[in-house]
Amino acid sequence: MIIIMKPHASKQAVAKVQHLIESKGLTAHLSEGSEVTIVGVVGDKTKLAGSNIELLEGVEKIVAVTESYKLANKKFHPEDSIIPAGKTMIGPGTLTVMAGPCAIESHDQLMQSAIAVKKAGATILRGGAYKPRTSPYSFQGLEEEGLRYMKEAGEVTGLTTICEVTSLRALETAVKYVDMLQIGARNMQNFELLKEAGKSGLPVMLKRGLSATIEEWLNAAEYIMAYDNPNVVLCERGIRTYETATRNTLDLSAVPVIRAKSHLPVIVDPSHATGVRAYIAPMAKAAIAAGADGLMIEVHPCPSCALSDGPQSLTFEDFDALMKSLKPYADLEGRKF
Amino acid sequence: MIIIMKPHASKQAVAKVQHLIESKGLTAHLSEGSEVTIVGVVGDKTKLAGSNIELLEGVEKIVAVTESYKLANKKFHPEDSIIPAGKTMIGPGTLTVMAGPCAIESHDQLMQSAIAVKKAGATILRGGAYKPRTSPYSFQGLEEEGLRYMKEAGEVTGLTTICEVTSLRALETAVKYVDMLQIGARNMQNFELLKEAGKSGLPVMLKRGLSATIEEWLNAAEYIMAYDNPNVVLCERGIRTYETATRNTLDLSAVPVIRAKSHLPVIVDPSHATGVRAYIAPMAKAAIAAGADGLMIEVHPCPSCALSDGPQSLTFEDFDALMKSLKPYADLEGRKF
Amino acid sequence: MIIIMKPHASKQAVAKVQHLIESKGLTAHLSEGSEVTIVGVVGDKTKLAGSNIELLEGVEKIVAVTESYKLANKKFHPEDSIIPAGKTMIGPGTLTVMAGPCAIESHDQLMQSAIAVKKAGATILRGGAYKPRTSPYSFQGLEEEGLRYMKEAGEVTGLTTICEVTSLRALETAVKYVDMLQIGARNMQNFELLKEAGKSGLPVMLKRGLSATIEEWLNAAEYIMAYDNPNVVLCERGIRTYETATRNTLDLSAVPVIRAKSHLPVIVDPSHATGVRAYIAPMAKAAIAAGADGLMIEVHPCPSCALSDGPQSLTFEDFDALMKSLKPYADLEGRKF
Amino acid sequence: MIIIMKPHASKQAVAKVQHLIESKGLTAHLSEGSEVTIVGVVGDKTKLAGSNIELLEGVEKIVAVTESYKLANKKFHPEDSIIPAGKTMIGPGTLTVMAGPCAIESHDQLMQSAIAVKKAGATILRGGAYKPRTSPYSFQGLEEEGLRYMKEAGEVTGLTTICEVTSLRALETAVKYVDMLQIGARNMQNFELLKEAGKSGLPVMLKRGLSATIEEWLNAAEYIMAYDNPNVVLCERGIRTYETATRNTLDLSAVPVIRAKSHLPVIVDPSHATGVRAYIAPMAKAAIAAGADGLMIEVHPCPSCALSDGPQSLTFEDFDALMKSLKPYADLEGRKF
Repeated sequence: MIIIMKPHASKQAVAKVQHLIESKGLTAHLSEGSEVTIVGVVGDKTKLAGSNIELLEGVEKIVAVTESYKLANKKFHPEDSIIPAGKTMIGPGTLTVMAGPCAIESHDQLMQSAIAVKKAGATILRGGAYKPRTSPYSFQGLEEEGLRYMKEAGEVTGLTTICEVTSLRALETAVKYVDMLQIGARNMQNFELLKEAGKSGLPVMLKRGLSATIEEWLNAAEYIMAYDNPNVVLCERGIRTYETATRNTLDLSAVPVIRAKSHLPVIVDPSHATGVRAYIAPMAKAAIAAGADGLMIEVHPCPSCALSDGPQSLTFEDFDALMKSLKPYADLEGRKF
Repeated sequence: MIIIMKPHASKQAVAKVQHLIESKGLTAHLSEGSEVTIVGVVGDKTKLAGSNIELLEGVEKIVAVTESYKLANKKFHPEDSIIPAGKTMIGPGTLTVMAGPCAIESHDQLMQSAIAVKKAGATILRGGAYKPRTSPYSFQGLEEEGLRYMKEAGEVTGLTTICEVTSLRALETAVKYVDMLQIGARNMQNFELLKEAGKSGLPVMLKRGLSATIEEWLNAAEYIMAYDNPNVVLCERGIRTYETATRNTLDLSAVPVIRAKSHLPVIVDPSHATGVRAYIAPMAKAAIAAGADGLMIEVHPCPSCALSDGPQSLTFEDFDALMKSLKPYADLEGRKF
Repeated sequence: MIIIMKPHASKQAVAKVQHLIESKGLTAHLSEGSEVTIVGVVGDKTKLAGSNIELLEGVEKIVAVTESYKLANKKFHPEDSIIPAGKTMIGPGTLTVMAGPCAIESHDQLMQSAIAVKKAGATILRGGAYKPRTSPYSFQGLEEEGLRYMKEAGEVTGLTTICEVTSLRALETAVKYVDMLQIGARNMQNFELLKEAGKSGLPVMLKRGLSATIEEWLNAAEYIMAYDNPNVVLCERGIRTYETATRNTLDLSAVPVIRAKSHLPVIVDPSHATGVRAYIAPMAKAAIAAGADGLMIEVHPCPSCALSDGPQSLTFEDFDALMKSLKPYADLEGRKF
Repeated sequence: MIIIMKPHASKQAVAKVQHLIESKGLTAHLSEGSEVTIVGVVGDKTKLAGSNIELLEGVEKIVAVTESYKLANKKFHPEDSIIPAGKTMIGPGTLTVMAGPCAIESHDQLMQSAIAVKKAGATILRGGAYKPRTSPYSFQGLEEEGLRYMKEAGEVTGLTTICEVTSLRALETAVKYVDMLQIGARNMQNFELLKEAGKSGLPVMLKRGLSATIEEWLNAAEYIMAYDNPNVVLCERGIRTYETATRNTLDLSAVPVIRAKSHLPVIVDPSHATGVRAYIAPMAKAAIAAGADGLMIEVHPCPSCALSDGPQSLTFEDFDALMKSLKPYADLEGRKF
């Protein structure tokens, strides 16, 4: 941590800052410039939590030197993690495709989808039983009934299953039915939910918040990991910007940034990010080329009948063609697919 | 709802759209232009939910004509609402100030704050017992112990009390102790929490999400109101932009926009929005001039000792001076203060 | 300037950084932490321009301690500037209103506007002769003919005149006719234009770029001032965000931020920022309450006939009523109006 | 164009709108809904320019149905364009790499760079002679001297040459020396410059503005094309968002969006977008996979000596390795490279 003093801060002000740091058992290093004095803090900065140094007289600003997340940080865990989820291993060397309908609508719809995505090469079945919808008047999901279909579809096809949980109650129910939990973008900073997801022991896919920085996203992963659950997979799904040509702006640069800052795998969801069917294939290829460990794709037996997110869902035929077209990109990256 | 066809969409494609609309018991009006055909839909558009018209052949895009929120909509409730919270009435004709520490840290800290903000003219006491913090290693709040202090502080001073709830469990506990619930920015689209807040029967202050549009914010209010709870107060607290000179960008234009679109009162929180003590007073004045129904201000007996958000907290003296300086602005707006 | 080394950077890497700094005649101060070593640089950092220290082995990042703008910086010029423009003094103690049509359309339209805004209390006449329009097929302005009307309107009414310049050619022409130049948002980083505006000797109003940070804005002002022209006035006109309820998001917090960082006056343009007539009055009041030195308002004899920006223009009657309603807010701030 | 009336707008208000439309020789189609009446306008909507229909009594809003750009629009020019620039053809079937230093610093630096990038497989040499720099105290470019080096480097190596122009004066000089002009992000809406670039007759690469929508970008291209210059190439270089882990947020989705809306080729600049050397290779691969027609990459003989943008420049060895690694991605897309 570095403390930058205001220009011409008094010697007393600097001494007071120095004294506070040393009173906590830390060391203060002074650099006196012609205009500005800088105080470097050496030692465990958590001892300064709640000290509010920025409020001391003469202090201009504080600059953090180290990240606040530790368990998710590549600096302390240089080797990339491989996260087990059901029978699937997510991470380096493989390309994991999670596919299925946005919302589970019926037994038939899910079962048909499961068989189709399995046949095309996906290893994880997705499907929403609890739907976070902007308007209270939109379809809200089949809840536990949907989870039962999910469990059956997993057993029949051998696919690993993942379902979004939107509340503590949903989480308590979901753990009985699925192999992996998903925390959605709107709940990325629902810290109570993160803690419970950590305690669940199940692998968790954590989507990036609509306007979350990568730093906040890794801190959210840290919440889950701090409850003794190392099995976190990140998912980039587009951020909110001023551009309206796509539903969100897919931040593919986040893939190499996460690679540099964390050891956790990162998945990309081009369906939610673009919101437009025609843009899914190019962005899926681009995600693989950028280094993503997998993809999440929405597939529906009849997109024009879908109760949620039809316009961005692929038909079974589209999905099969997409999977075939992705194969050479996975090969180029040395990923089993 | 308006359906815009692609240039040179076939007559069959147009007929198919028309047929779908009429099959749902609605009326379709065609406007055939030289380049483009437009289909207007007349009738209750909820009958089209799940029809995914945008996926039909030849359809370019759909334009919504009416808002999806009804209960929060000024069109169906032209008179501005006055929301009762404890002994306070929030809305036209008054300027409500909610003040207190960001986090409740101890019995003394809260009690001193309550007495000081009451003396300076606030009518609602704020204080966080459950703190949503970016890092799991930051102070997380006193929880139920804090709520007990809150109840006592309310009884001793006669102030109305408000506390943020961050989960269903927190909500279940809080309703036993406080007069008004707060849903924070990070939980604006935690729809399960919104539903429970609706069912609680208590008045709810709903903060705008970090990157929520005004439309999404009003839809979130609609979730609460759809559970027979009309007592919702909105709170603008800054949105996320590229600018870093302030913590968030306070969107004061949201005040007249909400005035135009909804009958619900709107409060402004300049403390969280700016994150800088020196900017609170000018933005508080500006909020009143823009038409806000109240302010939420962070006050702490010793900002430099605060466990949360010290840099943006005012001392008791600062707060007292601020309140005095706001009086003439409230007078100009014809608001009792 | 502070250089933060990577964790476990080698002693040689640190020595190399230290050596580079000292080879430029500066002093390096080392703070060796348990995890990280920090190097403070003392002396004139411009000597390091082009050194690319961030590329040296073992360097994590560079943190700037001082701002790159000097002439616009309050630290080196603590007293607020008063900028003379024609007969108007812009700055502390006064509230300057610039009003007139978005685009000059005819002799009559401008002359009527000039007389009306003068009568209502404005002291500066605005009007665009060169219009930056998104589409090449929109009205582009009357150019020199418009400037001639502007000069005449200024002479007849005694108003100071301001006109936007969009190119070096426009600037060369405009200096012959108007008292003050305006650089628009789209040209805030048209550095050639800034340099020529500096050389012109005329006072310059510099609008904030659509997505410019306050730091970039002040650096743009520095370009003008670096050419011996101290007469710069800033104008906040809304920034681009994801919100579409208003045309831009008016960042009123920029007013106190500029107050804290610069001695230059700052004007607010609620017409362009909101794009909606009904929101202009509340935001104009809010701007004054936030500490603005003036306002820029669009007025048109017949908004529904305007060739540009009609929806956000006020009629003469609206403007007169607005000016009357602003008077008490100016009084509260101790500003002559 | 569609006009949406306010709920319960009077019959007279609707009639007035209808009358205005018909008075311009257009046809109005009415759809009377239970809540809202909609008026569709059929015919050449440019006849309504300046009518300000949104200001008529009872009008809620106007929805545009067709795009304002015509020459750049795929609807009127369905076949993808191939743009000739010097000896290079940019567009479908090829992958064009433009490489070279951010700023031209000396004869040797440019000549070495030209030889190195040619050897590695680039076909266009980039290099800035006029540098738009945020601070007036940063290196501003060698200007005409730099252009002379550029011409010589082009002649010696046979590379096509491109240089950014930042003003009309720079443009007048540059046309004498280079094969292709570049309009930078900061000048994307410097409309005078766009017009002159159109008149120059040279091919123009138009970078996307820092916060430009794709619609605004295509309208800017339209300015150039409206001056009888069809040879425009677009360049995505990252947009401004709240995320600070990369310099800008590279919006790769813009590539398929441009493919869908325009026939113009689109190039991607991962160097400026990310600002970090380690992220260039993954994003370059991703750009090709997303369908880009080319790449712009910064290369410098000694990045740590560069006067501009060193941290994002590749060494000759890095660039050579990058080009080799891109080959299989270009092959997969069927692009000659």
